[in-house]
Amino acid sequence: MAATALTARMFSNAAMQQVFSAENTIQRMLDFEAALAHALAAEDVIPATAPAAIKAACQASRIDQKALAAAARQSGNLAIPLVKQLTAEVAAIDATAARYVHWGATSQDVIDTGLVLQLRDAIALISVELGELADALAGLVHRHRDTPMIGRTWMQHALPITFGLKAAGWLDAVMRHQHRLHDLHQRIAVLQFGGAAGTLASLGNRGLPVADALAHALELQLPDLPWHAHRDRIAECATVFGLLTGTLGKIAGDLALQMQTEVAELAEPVAPGRGGSSTMPHKRNPVACAAVRAAAARVPALVSTMLATMDHEHERALGGWQAEWDTLPEIATLCGAALTQLRDVIEGLQVDAARMRANIDLTRGLVMAEAVSLALAEHIGRSHAHELVEAACQRALAQGAGLLDVLRADPQVTAQLSPQALEKLFEPLSYTGEAGALADRVLAAHRARKR
Amino acid sequence: MAATALTARMFSNAAMQQVFSAENTIQRMLDFEAALAHALAAEDVIPATAPAAIKAACQASRIDQKALAAAARQSGNLAIPLVKQLTAEVAAIDATAARYVHWGATSQDVIDTGLVLQLRDAIALISVELGELADALAGLVHRHRDTPMIGRTWMQHALPITFGLKAAGWLDAVMRHQHRLHDLHQRIAVLQFGGAAGTLASLGNRGLPVADALAHALELQLPDLPWHAHRDRIAECATVFGLLTGTLGKIAGDLALQMQTEVAELAEPVAPGRGGSSTMPHKRNPVACAAVRAAAARVPALVSTMLATMDHEHERALGGWQAEWDTLPEIATLCGAALTQLRDVIEGLQVDAARMRANIDLTRGLVMAEAVSLALAEHIGRSHAHELVEAACQRALAQGAGLLDVLRADPQVTAQLSPQALEKLFEPLSYTGEAGALADRVLAAHRARKR
Amino acid sequence: MAATALTARMFSNAAMQQVFSAENTIQRMLDFEAALAHALAAEDVIPATAPAAIKAACQASRIDQKALAAAARQSGNLAIPLVKQLTAEVAAIDATAARYVHWGATSQDVIDTGLVLQLRDAIALISVELGELADALAGLVHRHRDTPMIGRTWMQHALPITFGLKAAGWLDAVMRHQHRLHDLHQRIAVLQFGGAAGTLASLGNRGLPVADALAHALELQLPDLPWHAHRDRIAECATVFGLLTGTLGKIAGDLALQMQTEVAELAEPVAPGRGGSSTMPHKRNPVACAAVRAAAARVPALVSTMLATMDHEHERALGGWQAEWDTLPEIATLCGAALTQLRDVIEGLQVDAARMRANIDLTRGLVMAEAVSLALAEHIGRSHAHELVEAACQRALAQGAGLLDVLRADPQVTAQLSPQALEKLFEPLSYTGEAGALADRVLAAHRARKR
Amino acid sequence: MAATALTARMFSNAAMQQVFSAENTIQRMLDFEAALAHALAAEDVIPATAPAAIKAACQASRIDQKALAAAARQSGNLAIPLVKQLTAEVAAIDATAARYVHWGATSQDVIDTGLVLQLRDAIALISVELGELADALAGLVHRHRDTPMIGRTWMQHALPITFGLKAAGWLDAVMRHQHRLHDLHQRIAVLQFGGAAGTLASLGNRGLPVADALAHALELQLPDLPWHAHRDRIAECATVFGLLTGTLGKIAGDLALQMQTEVAELAEPVAPGRGGSSTMPHKRNPVACAAVRAAAARVPALVSTMLATMDHEHERALGGWQAEWDTLPEIATLCGAALTQLRDVIEGLQVDAARMRANIDLTRGLVMAEAVSLALAEHIGRSHAHELVEAACQRALAQGAGLLDVLRADPQVTAQLSPQALEKLFEPLSYTGEAGALADRVLAAHRARKR
Repeated sequence: MAATALTARMFSNAAMQQVFSAENTIQRMLDFEAALAHALAAEDVIPATAPAAIKAACQASRIDQKALAAAARQSGNLAIPLVKQLTAEVAAIDATAARYVHWGATSQDVIDTGLVLQLRDAIALISVELGELADALAGLVHRHRDTPMIGRTWMQHALPITFGLKAAGWLDAVMRHQHRLHDLHQRIAVLQFGGAAGTLASLGNRGLPVADALAHALELQLPDLPWHAHRDRIAECATVFGLLTGTLGKIAGDLALQMQTEVAELAEPVAPGRGGSSTMPHKRNPVACAAVRAAAARVPALVSTMLATMDHEHERALGGWQAEWDTLPEIATLCGAALTQLRDVIEGLQVDAARMRANIDLTRGLVMAEAVSLALAEHIGRSHAHELVEAACQRALAQGAGLLDVLRADPQVTAQLSPQALEKLFEPLSYTGEAGALADRVLAAHRARKR
Repeated sequence: MAATALTARMFSNAAMQQVFSAENTIQRMLDFEAALAHALAAEDVIPATAPAAIKAACQASRIDQKALAAAARQSGNLAIPLVKQLTAEVAAIDATAARYVHWGATSQDVIDTGLVLQLRDAIALISVELGELADALAGLVHRHRDTPMIGRTWMQHALPITFGLKAAGWLDAVMRHQHRLHDLHQRIAVLQFGGAAGTLASLGNRGLPVADALAHALELQLPDLPWHAHRDRIAECATVFGLLTGTLGKIAGDLALQMQTEVAELAEPVAPGRGGSSTMPHKRNPVACAAVRAAAARVPALVSTMLATMDHEHERALGGWQAEWDTLPEIATLCGAALTQLRDVIEGLQVDAARMRANIDLTRGLVMAEAVSLALAEHIGRSHAHELVEAACQRALAQGAGLLDVLRADPQVTAQLSPQALEKLFEPLSYTGEAGALADRVLAAHRARKR
Repeated sequence: MAATALTARMFSNAAMQQVFSAENTIQRMLDFEAALAHALAAEDVIPATAPAAIKAACQASRIDQKALAAAARQSGNLAIPLVKQLTAEVAAIDATAARYVHWGATSQDVIDTGLVLQLRDAIALISVELGELADALAGLVHRHRDTPMIGRTWMQHALPITFGLKAAGWLDAVMRHQHRLHDLHQRIAVLQFGGAAGTLASLGNRGLPVADALAHALELQLPDLPWHAHRDRIAECATVFGLLTGTLGKIAGDLALQMQTEVAELAEPVAPGRGGSSTMPHKRNPVACAAVRAAAARVPALVSTMLATMDHEHERALGGWQAEWDTLPEIATLCGAALTQLRDVIEGLQVDAARMRANIDLTRGLVMAEAVSLALAEHIGRSHAHELVEAACQRALAQGAGLLDVLRADPQVTAQLSPQALEKLFEPLSYTGEAGALADRVLAAHRARKR
Repeated sequence: MAATALTARMFSNAAMQQVFSAENTIQRMLDFEAALAHALAAEDVIPATAPAAIKAACQASRIDQKALAAAARQSGNLAIPLVKQLTAEVAAIDATAARYVHWGATSQDVIDTGLVLQLRDAIALISVELGELADALAGLVHRHRDTPMIGRTWMQHALPITFGLKAAGWLDAVMRHQHRLHDLHQRIAVLQFGGAAGTLASLGNRGLPVADALAHALELQLPDLPWHAHRDRIAECATVFGLLTGTLGKIAGDLALQMQTEVAELAEPVAPGRGGSSTMPHKRNPVACAAVRAAAARVPALVSTMLATMDHEHERALGGWQAEWDTLPEIATLCGAALTQLRDVIEGLQVDAARMRANIDLTRGLVMAEAVSLALAEHIGRSHAHELVEAACQRALAQGAGLLDVLRADPQVTAQLSPQALEKLFEPLSYTGEAGALADRVLAAHRARKR
């Protein structure tokens, strides 16, 4: 067992691990072989009796994985020794059928199509959990539509926003990824079948009909051409996962910043043995956020590998193809793991609205200066209002006093604004502009999507 | 002038350089400011007289670029000093209007929307040249539909294909990128407008109406939410350019391999002073291919930067946003330059069909062994045929003889196949399977796309 | 002017811009040509009169940069058109000498050696500023050796440390980079000179003597072999800059986190127009930290490009070499800019020791629980002490009370520890272990280095 | 089992797999715990009887790996559950000793130091195989010191070189990596020990003495400071492996290009079932080169991850640290695997010197034009000689004739050079300049290194 197995639970999830397990990788290649036999027989290329025996043998449990791995080092890919083992298995059932295993196909046909079948499953898994994340986020937006908090730019307090608006930004991005995944699902589900050099020559004039039947059997599209040396579809899959992981990292980053001891607006869900420290009882380490951020830190470089290795030489690459084999599954796995971890955090997120409210006041009202200035401007003009407020802010900073108190003591201000009016200006929700309306737009889009 | 200026002609093209020039970067930001003034006046937020003066001042030529760059170091972005210069320019025309410059907007609104306007132009440029590349490739496919050449896998001779099929693979990939660019164009053309913290608070209850008018004026979509801290659209643009560049690199790699002295099937177009060497008169360096490959080697890492910096902190990033500023233009520029160079190569590509034909024979007929084996199989069964041919191949390799000669001398073979039949099997085009039909499918798709 | 020129002041510094300017890139190539002529004459390969004219013409100001850039697109590199222009300039001085320009050299000799000369200058520049950063950090360590602050792990309060210890960690890393740069300086200063294919064949039996004289003239080492196709030295330079930039980014990240409004322990130096916001008078955007973090976000991917393009084909690359040309200067420039920005911040850093002290108390004493537990253990055993303190912590959290108050009210505790002893345990400096000694070790190393 | 296990034999080697196995990862962490107990007892911090029981329990075979992985997801790292399991194991032996397990240490101390111990082993492994590769390369240089072949630039024929010179270039680079690994070995073997926040506070005034004893016990250096939040040493390790892998990829790339069917100068060693194809008997796929190139394509991006995650927040990172855990082992594993594969290829490399010689003639003598020109120049001046030869080259190209024949027919040439002299100029070895001397320099350096 490799060391990565120890961290696997942190950086993967069970369902995705299954999709890219050795067992399933083999099974998906065998699914191709079984469907190929079926298609060949349907087009009268091989005897009608062959597919049954081949299909019967196409079970991953029959394959000796250790022997496969050892032989792959010599052959340079998994398909050659897999076909050899499969042929022996078929021969044990039906010696004649064994002659037709892998007929007309090349190694890359079975490896690439097997990968496509795995990616289709991976996308389906991610889509489901992304929907769950969207639902959980929509819940947050709904519950905190009017929960004021401070907006932060450059990691400094700026102006008040609402937590609903912040969460709506997360949800809005997540829904764009749902759209991207949907498109990707359409584009990636494409058969690869070209034979040794992409011409299907060994099938004579039945190449295209067999390809058509094969695509149909696997519920894949038949592309205009075999695409073995053109990796844009495969690389695009990496980029879409990469974009999604980027957004997950952004959200986890926001959460982690809000979970800092000094900020304390959010906390990860509590669970036994989770994020604790025996010697430091006050600690609540955001371990899920760390895992998401770690995944988001790793995926971009892996995506660059997928882009950098698109230059497959001629009709089959010498290095670029082999570089994909572990890289794309790793991207999918990290993306899936980050999604699961983040969904769990959002579903159980602990929100401290009181602390959000209190943090707004950390600058003693300075974040409301713009609101006051605009209110005064209606009475004394924008320019004069701006001067008055700027001077008040400077006094507040110099005296360590609250801006409201400074303004209350300024007769030029009190001449225009009553004490009640002034106080109301320091209500954060009075200055969150379109935050509510914007959150509602996103919630409406979410509802529309689910219909 | 930076050293990059010296290599600019190699790694950029004039039109794209213009899109991302300092002048145009400023102009696109000013376009935002002019449109904003128009939208604010339309919604009665600012006086109806202000937009005219603001628009008149919104000319990049009025801006002192050196002063802008110097001030940007202090302010941390271009918008703050640009708005300052603009305000002074407006004031010189209409002092009142100057009070309404940039009203309700924040730095990121103008920088991000300016970038979107540039990206829209960049995508349009790339789309045009991609269409030209597709046309040139379609010409190749058409002309060489039946030009036999050797297919190469693992950089070794495999089986014959046609040059038309190879070019059809290139074209097929290029058309997928045309589709991706079309989608991208839809998705990227989105307004960013949120004010200091994304709530449009300083516009009171007129935030959304102004946003709507502004989007309309710039011919951009109005998104559900300001998206300043969510970079998936921007990063997606980088990935689509990255995917396209990957395909360009793949094609240039194939070309370069075919242009090797030992292969000599293709050559770059001839031009005075191009790719030559004064001391080595035989040299024809594929300089355009080198430039495309260099671009393709650089873009993947730049894309990873765009993905890795998606984790913008809270409502405005501290580092991640700034990292995009030079990176995305560099991606677009490299992609555009690679495209221009490759289009030029393909349009003037020198194809040596005779050499392609001759290269097929380098293995003295061994690449046709599969064809012979299948032909024999019709007479004596697959298994026996395979044995006969394998033995013949071994003899050919051992004797340094041609496979055809060895087969001619084998009575077991000549008993089944006449000399003419044998010779015909060594015609490469007799064993290129569906190559012609596949090329036709791609040509049909190309024609359909152009309609 | 490209848009990057607008942000150049943010992401570069004047001295480094000069090193990698077009002017200096050309001059360093011309320095090679002048030294080559000198070496050739010294070894009697060319007439003794030739070097004077060649040297006189080797001035970058004589070169038409625009024409150079235009011709480079055709020739595929800068050297060919540069040598052409240079030859014309020499011819105007001495027609005979013009025949010996670039004698025995190839394009890559002049481009690579020119780059080495630039890198040597870049390393020298960085070394000086790195020394200044180290000095400024040593000042911080010295001044704040005993300034208590909270240590934070997983972005959560852990135990008290000192700001001196934290700054010592920064300094310690910076000194390791000084060591690396010193090594790099030795390794990179190596001549490249091999002629068209690396054999120096056109110099007959004087190849090595000329190479030796050339290296001497340029104050470079003569390597065992020309290294044009082996880029490990060049790529190593990129990695060393990358490692340094990584540390700069780490420090800037710590600073930015400590500058958050909620933390407020540090602030960037104040300067007119710096990091401010007209509408938000309380804002102090850490613009230099943002620039450092942006550089640190960009450099890793650029380093990966340098590593990924090491596979130069045969004796000169088709793409990989060209990909280096803009990438390595960009790495050096970003590294240098980040260093300048960070040095300026550290030299003028505003430290709020009172706030550091106050932040320690944010958990109401919980961060001192381990200290109390260890003190109690001396009286009642480790296990019992741990139980008592853990229970007290739980009560403190539940009641929102301070841990000191809870302990004062616990007779099992007061039976062992006097009120004064208890209170003393809550003095952060009483529980910073070896912080002072560790800081002293680093300061001693810094002093030793400067001797 | 993950799919990566299937390809493990291709992309890893047994010894390196063992170093980074789950078992050894655990054992190295336990080695830290055992040494810590020893050091604590030596400094009288814990009872003298404790270390024996702790050491006895520190066996990886006692640890339940599945339970460890499951708990790590909750705790966020391996150390917390490992210490828990270890404590239980110790308690079964000696209940008192169990109280002192992990005393004074924090999770990152054990994880980081365990990693350092693994890296030290990995470097040792790589160093041994790198020495073997160097020896094999030295053999090639020695045997082929005077084997002429064509030098290729831009993937075009340039001038003749020797295969010895080419291999000397490979060896020269490999020896530089030996030097780098030696330096790295010194720098990486450093203890990490700081306790919860890096102050060793819980050890009172015995922190540094314990650290010293611990370093001594593990044969590691004691650094000036704990370095848990400064990853430059760790990242440097990644870069050195990355540089080495880059060179391995360069060599494999050269080999693969020379192994092309059209070039056929080299072939991988033959082995049963290796690189073959049942349907294409002529194929000899360079599967080892493909594996090396695949590794070289993957490592650069992984290195960028190590650089990009150096910005560990404060005293322990939230994401950046966790991102290292699988990434650095993957880099080491890919580097080690590529090295093993390449060493095997070089040790058994099949060199076809006759084909190398024949390929020189592919341009019918044009590659010797420079040699002829220089020889003529001694008689008629450089300028006239150049004109004559250039014209002859043009005629040769136009007529498809050999340059020697064209020159023989040119009276202006034959007036200066006898038929024998002319013919001799077309001997490649007469124009390989310093190739032999340069190869000798590298061989001498190799011998010096081994002494």
